[in-house]
Amino acid sequence: MSSILLNCMGAVTDHSEYSEPEVLFKNPQIHVKNPQLDTMEEDILYHFNLGTKTHNLPEMFGDIKPGMGVPSISIMLHKLIKLLHHARCIDFALFRIGTSGGVGLDPGTVVVTDKAVDCFFRAQFEQVVLGKVITRSTELDVGVSKELLQCSSELDDVPTVIGNTMCTSDFYEGQDRLDGALCSFSTEDKLEYLRKAYNTGVRNIEMESTVFRAMCHRLSSV
Amino acid sequence: MSSILLNCMGAVTDHSEYSEPEVLFKNPQIHVKNPQLDTMEEDILYHFNLGTKTHNLPEMFGDIKPGMGVPSISIMLHKLIKLLHHARCIDFALFRIGTSGGVGLDPGTVVVTDKAVDCFFRAQFEQVVLGKVITRSTELDVGVSKELLQCSSELDDVPTVIGNTMCTSDFYEGQDRLDGALCSFSTEDKLEYLRKAYNTGVRNIEMESTVFRAMCHRLSSV
Repeated sequence: MSSILLNCMGAVTDHSEYSEPEVLFKNPQIHVKNPQLDTMEEDILYHFNLGTKTHNLPEMFGDIKPGMGVPSISIMLHKLIKLLHHARCIDFALFRIGTSGGVGLDPGTVVVTDKAVDCFFRAQFEQVVLGKVITRSTELDVGVSKELLQCSSELDDVPTVIGNTMCTSDFYEGQDRLDGALCSFSTEDKLEYLRKAYNTGVRNIEMESTVFRAMCHRLSSV
Repeated sequence: MSSILLNCMGAVTDHSEYSEPEVLFKNPQIHVKNPQLDTMEEDILYHFNLGTKTHNLPEMFGDIKPGMGVPSISIMLHKLIKLLHHARCIDFALFRIGTSGGVGLDPGTVVVTDKAVDCFFRAQFEQVVLGKVITRSTELDVGVSKELLQCSSELDDVPTVIGNTMCTSDFYEGQDRLDGALCSFSTEDKLEYLRKAYNTGVRNIEMESTVFRAMCHRLSSV
């Protein structure tokens, strides 16, 4: 992901003469909820110092292909945070929204993360810096979690809970899946691990939460 | 990764009538370490939107676009290896070719990996399975490395060396970069770490080599 962004940013000057095509593009997948955008001569993304007339955004960003897991989101976060820093942004919150595997929940349930925990159920992230392991806190903003839960109560048919989110570095063996190319455990082993996870408060599993929170926590402290 | 792959797989409806042959195929070269696969009525490769009952995998090729880092390549490898297994491929070698950061080499030098090492310079990969750490070997095929080096000698202007490749889970702090959103070390610390790496035989740094080799090694043994 990062290399795509870096490459794109390096080529910005190439687009100085860029002029947006006249034909209106309707994205079949992103339904931007602002009809004004269609009528604007130019849309300037002030905080990114980008504009639809000055930069060829489809060429710059149309090919962005995010990966999965801690390394990919870490690369993205380093750049996003530097972008916010250079753009002098204040008073913002970062959210990560994504799919995850539920633990003991009905499909479709939204989990607002309380603690982001590793695969040993510890609320921490181990970052290696020049060959040394540094342990960082993954504590979340309790106020924001409660606000999000409150929002959900105002929506129909969006079952929402607050729970711990377990972050693994592997989709198959790390998440007790039986259908990987490698699988050395039984269905019973899998269920025992999931029960342990549930008993410590884990309600869903994904692959990015600990580093997301560790970086935000580290960067929001002086 | 998944959404991109889903888009690529838009043409798979051609195989909607496909039904898996009844005969169990034993691949002589890919020893998938999951006995569950043989008993499954259907194996669905979720991130590829493919299934062994709905698609004629021996006839098909996937278009894989992974992200960066161990989790992304691990997901891709699980599916690629199962794809090779289902497609009954034999007599093949897997190569990973990519960009990397050189250590003590001129820009443009090709590094053929001797050992894939972690950020502590150990030729191993730690895989967490159901909350337990399993250490796997990252040994490479020496014969193939030498063949590749031989190939390079037949090409002009492609300086090539054999050396250790260090795999990190982070692009910035893990790879001693000074331009991340977080940086707690000095230029001197960085150079000292690079010198240590060089002295153990490291010639380049990237983010996927250890799990790539660990999975191939594990799967090529009976």
